[in-house]
Amino acid sequence: MTLEQQIHEIGAKARVAARALAALSAESRNGILRAMADELLARTPQILEANAQDLVGASEHGLNKAAIDRLRLTEKRIADMANDIWQVAQLADPVGQTISEWKRPNGLRIAKVRTPIGVIGIIYESRPNVTSDAAVLCIKTGNAVVLRGGSEALNSNLAIAEALQAGGASKGLPENAVQLLPTKAREAVAIVAAMDQYIDLIIPRGGHSLIETVVRHARMPVIKHYHGICHVYVDKEADLKMAKKIAINAKCQRPGTCNAMETLLVHRRISQEFLKEAAPAFQEQGVEIRADETAYAQLQKLNYEPLARAEEKDWSTEYLDTIMSLRVVDDLNQAIDHMERYGSHHSDAIITSDAEAAEKFLNDVDSATVYWNASTRFTDGGEFGFGAEIGISTDKLHARGPMGLEELTSYKYVIRGDGQIRE
Amino acid sequence: MTLEQQIHEIGAKARVAARALAALSAESRNGILRAMADELLARTPQILEANAQDLVGASEHGLNKAAIDRLRLTEKRIADMANDIWQVAQLADPVGQTISEWKRPNGLRIAKVRTPIGVIGIIYESRPNVTSDAAVLCIKTGNAVVLRGGSEALNSNLAIAEALQAGGASKGLPENAVQLLPTKAREAVAIVAAMDQYIDLIIPRGGHSLIETVVRHARMPVIKHYHGICHVYVDKEADLKMAKKIAINAKCQRPGTCNAMETLLVHRRISQEFLKEAAPAFQEQGVEIRADETAYAQLQKLNYEPLARAEEKDWSTEYLDTIMSLRVVDDLNQAIDHMERYGSHHSDAIITSDAEAAEKFLNDVDSATVYWNASTRFTDGGEFGFGAEIGISTDKLHARGPMGLEELTSYKYVIRGDGQIRE
Repeated sequence: MTLEQQIHEIGAKARVAARALAALSAESRNGILRAMADELLARTPQILEANAQDLVGASEHGLNKAAIDRLRLTEKRIADMANDIWQVAQLADPVGQTISEWKRPNGLRIAKVRTPIGVIGIIYESRPNVTSDAAVLCIKTGNAVVLRGGSEALNSNLAIAEALQAGGASKGLPENAVQLLPTKAREAVAIVAAMDQYIDLIIPRGGHSLIETVVRHARMPVIKHYHGICHVYVDKEADLKMAKKIAINAKCQRPGTCNAMETLLVHRRISQEFLKEAAPAFQEQGVEIRADETAYAQLQKLNYEPLARAEEKDWSTEYLDTIMSLRVVDDLNQAIDHMERYGSHHSDAIITSDAEAAEKFLNDVDSATVYWNASTRFTDGGEFGFGAEIGISTDKLHARGPMGLEELTSYKYVIRGDGQIRE
Repeated sequence: MTLEQQIHEIGAKARVAARALAALSAESRNGILRAMADELLARTPQILEANAQDLVGASEHGLNKAAIDRLRLTEKRIADMANDIWQVAQLADPVGQTISEWKRPNGLRIAKVRTPIGVIGIIYESRPNVTSDAAVLCIKTGNAVVLRGGSEALNSNLAIAEALQAGGASKGLPENAVQLLPTKAREAVAIVAAMDQYIDLIIPRGGHSLIETVVRHARMPVIKHYHGICHVYVDKEADLKMAKKIAINAKCQRPGTCNAMETLLVHRRISQEFLKEAAPAFQEQGVEIRADETAYAQLQKLNYEPLARAEEKDWSTEYLDTIMSLRVVDDLNQAIDHMERYGSHHSDAIITSDAEAAEKFLNDVDSATVYWNASTRFTDGGEFGFGAEIGISTDKLHARGPMGLEELTSYKYVIRGDGQIRE
């Protein structure tokens, strides 16, 4: 059997499983989730053993320390995965919810009802816990899932997926509802992405080149989780102490996340005063600032360091580090133009006490999440109150911004009549 | 300039126009629409002249009579287009609507607000009125549009698009908000589908091979409008007179539409009685029946004609004609299995007075629209009360079933705070 045939067989089985899964009640699905968590815990020794094999392979292949740390499982990490599953089991179930309903003049009653999507493909890198997180959110919403993890984590991922399957099966999880591609072959991604007869949606979670491979080959919808080049704009009417506090938080609270600020824009009229207030705080956090000409001069006077001149490419760089671009702008419009030109439409904030300027910003900035007087770091399913998150979509169709359980559902129209025909 | 450069320039201009368009009020956009309608009417002579050129070309290229009829414009057809625009102008505007809003424990106020999508590409065949219909629905929802019509209608489409642009411009429509690719080159479709830096969504409206070309090349989301293989299932507990009336309507009221019934499934226990009731009505309508063995024998006894034996491929054929497949099934489960195997998940109906069977059907059949005791012909934006329709999506992401104005929008999260930072 060729690799393509093997993968197509997995797809066909997932399609059958999806139908069986859709017929289960929310109660059954939650029972399945709890059994998955139990089995995951029970198999801790086997999972750690599989992980140890991956770690040996990783050092042999010369993975760097950060990558090895992401790959490493511990008893605590497995317990955390199991706890997360318990929490998802407790969340409200979106499947079956009536989104809206109405009656037509001819008496037809139309209800728009949430349904599972069907089969979801998740393609991800590195961290083995994604195997559990992603599978669990799919099962919660009645979707079958085909997983493809990073090749360096294959043994760990297989052990986790097997635990989920075995635990679920004990409570009626349909066979093949959770499947992991048992291959390290690179071509597998392109094959999965092309089989739209079996997979309804693909979610790539990983770096730019992974997403690009999926986009190039995909025939079905893809929900992308690209990078975040997020901005904070300090308006001339800003409360400068609030602006400082928010800018520091947006940049420094966790610089490696997609909702961290990468570029700070400051209105010309208050830039000197603001930098005098904020520069010591940034310096204390060890933030390297890459500044435009005006800001560079102002920061030099304040003896700021580390300080560099911003180059054109800095404005569109996601540092994911304690580095920040800084530009002084003439007005709100220039700030918005800057975001449109260089940003990634992820999360952008304005700090101002001028309600009119704020409303213009909130309306005109075409980003998934726009903030007035708050840190961009809140773009997160948990912070939104979604309970669970499969990621943060940078697309505009179906799901934009934090993707929770609702975004893992589709809908159908259920129409009840008493013999209506079309005239 | 190469064709690709030309098309990319059109895309880049559309992106600029989209930003300007998103800043307009609903009132401005409606004024623009009304001016478009006026200009379309005023340019009736020029549009008819352009259409005459296309018609000459069409006969020279040997298009068949039906295709030529679809291509032909008349004063009445142009007046109808203008009327449709007036009606769209009167519809409620989804852009800016708050879908939901809530407050977090930390005081952040989160609103999920409808926004335009950005730039929409519409790729269609034949009928020149689609140029107007599609452009108008995009402008109504604040989206810039790039149109690519059938090459046989290029002159007509250009004349219509120019009228819309000129009319709109008089009321502030941003330049390049409505653009039509001025080329008959086949490669244009692949080029448009690949430029995801400029186009946020592509909607192909046309035959299977057009959709397939778009799907193969598209890097951005595509909302497909595939065919409809729709079923009516007459349950053993059906009111047979109602079942007859609905089946006739679903098949015969307009057989050439995607929501017309292609296959009738009848429960074994009542098939003889039902066919005795319904066969004369189908015969009167001249419907050719392709029947499975049981139904064939029963219809033969009733001297039904035209009658043929169904072959395997009939079950998955969209006839779009007064031809129908007919199968006798053992029970509800077999009916559902048949739909899952052969159907296109578009519109399917059950006729029964057994509420339990009906609810099982409505839940288990994974189609965009499922009916209990009503004709499948109601799957239509107008019949749903949407006011306008860009088509009927056979996809499950973002839009499923009839696509109205709401489905031409995205959303963003607008978050208002008073200095919140993430701990």
